[in-house]
Amino acid sequence: MHVEQRIADLGYELPPAPAIPANVAIPFLWVRVLGQRALVSGHGAIDSLGVPEGPFGKVPTDIPLEQAQISARTATLSMLSSLKRALGDLDRIAGWGVVNGFVNAEPSYAQTTLVINPCSDLLLELFGVDVGGHARTAIGVAALPFNLPVVLSAELMIAG
Amino acid sequence: MHVEQRIADLGYELPPAPAIPANVAIPFLWVRVLGQRALVSGHGAIDSLGVPEGPFGKVPTDIPLEQAQISARTATLSMLSSLKRALGDLDRIAGWGVVNGFVNAEPSYAQTTLVINPCSDLLLELFGVDVGGHARTAIGVAALPFNLPVVLSAELMIAG
Amino acid sequence: MHVEQRIADLGYELPPAPAIPANVAIPFLWVRVLGQRALVSGHGAIDSLGVPEGPFGKVPTDIPLEQAQISARTATLSMLSSLKRALGDLDRIAGWGVVNGFVNAEPSYAQTTLVINPCSDLLLELFGVDVGGHARTAIGVAALPFNLPVVLSAELMIAG
Repeated sequence: MHVEQRIADLGYELPPAPAIPANVAIPFLWVRVLGQRALVSGHGAIDSLGVPEGPFGKVPTDIPLEQAQISARTATLSMLSSLKRALGDLDRIAGWGVVNGFVNAEPSYAQTTLVINPCSDLLLELFGVDVGGHARTAIGVAALPFNLPVVLSAELMIAG
Repeated sequence: MHVEQRIADLGYELPPAPAIPANVAIPFLWVRVLGQRALVSGHGAIDSLGVPEGPFGKVPTDIPLEQAQISARTATLSMLSSLKRALGDLDRIAGWGVVNGFVNAEPSYAQTTLVINPCSDLLLELFGVDVGGHARTAIGVAALPFNLPVVLSAELMIAG
Repeated sequence: MHVEQRIADLGYELPPAPAIPANVAIPFLWVRVLGQRALVSGHGAIDSLGVPEGPFGKVPTDIPLEQAQISARTATLSMLSSLKRALGDLDRIAGWGVVNGFVNAEPSYAQTTLVINPCSDLLLELFGVDVGGHARTAIGVAALPFNLPVVLSAELMIAG
């Protein structure tokens, strides 16, 4: 499948490991592997230095839909980067299970589905529908770490 | 067990597949089956044509508790309808695992438990406590797709 | 490992089973065991009588960060208490998988990570990194049951 090659072919790059500010402890694992399952912590967009990437704030008042969609795509690459470090090779992913999309949304913002779609689209592009197909829930929340506009978590199966 | 018969006996009907507006892409699966697990995407109430069903808005200002409870029950039927399409037969469900209930709530609305209870009640009525018993979390969120008052996601086990 | 002894050594005590007000039905299981997995429902802080424990309200306006962190730690003990009742012995826990932290947050409150950290810290202290390590997502939500400041849910593996 050669997922990393497809990432490059699409013009994307995996960011480095998250570089969290020194005053924020991260006492959890970005990816927890349990047998054939990989459980992925909430990831937001990070830049090429691993630093949480703005613009930050609420969708759609601070962050218009199109910018939130970019943040969702970048957060997907951040998840994939953590998975590569945890699994060694993204080709070990045997099946995506579920993606949870959290949007830092104004009350009653009705387009969280559209915000998270670039994540689903990218997974399908990279892994194909058999491996990349997934269940999903996309909700609007009151607050996210670092005031990020989008955070994604996931669960998937890995080859034995 | 004959779950579908029990649904009919209780006077309920499974809705058709969701009929999402053409301008909203749904690049995910309503149910993802991975081995013996079925992961269910966020489902809201839909009507007998599959269209997201109102009234829409916030609990309890736009939608009183009793109406939100009806929406939770209808969303449960929507999940069951997707499961029937994915599994062929609801009797293949061997054990409900977890239900996540999301309520489109005003800040500090303290009764999300009561909003989601009709979902749990219906699962227990249809599947009995051994199969239908489940863990659950019911939270109030800032926004939901289509401004639905309730969205439910779930995970369950299916017979091998 | 003797997790219960370590709880006592740290000066903590497991609360009793939740004692929910009679007008609130709880038609779900606090812990759902499915094969080697244990799925844990949303738990908040409870006191030594099992009653939901205040102070209640929003972080950080009603509840400052430090108080919310205490609520997160107490909610962790509440989860552990339910797990003890479900599993018989906390030493049967073979690996924590994922913890979901829900903070009853003011819009755009950016420190949900810090609110939930005492949960992760306590799990690592009690179980060590191999068993206690976990994926995590910590989000701010509009509303929680009983207007609790923090609710935690989780999934973990148990010995066969």
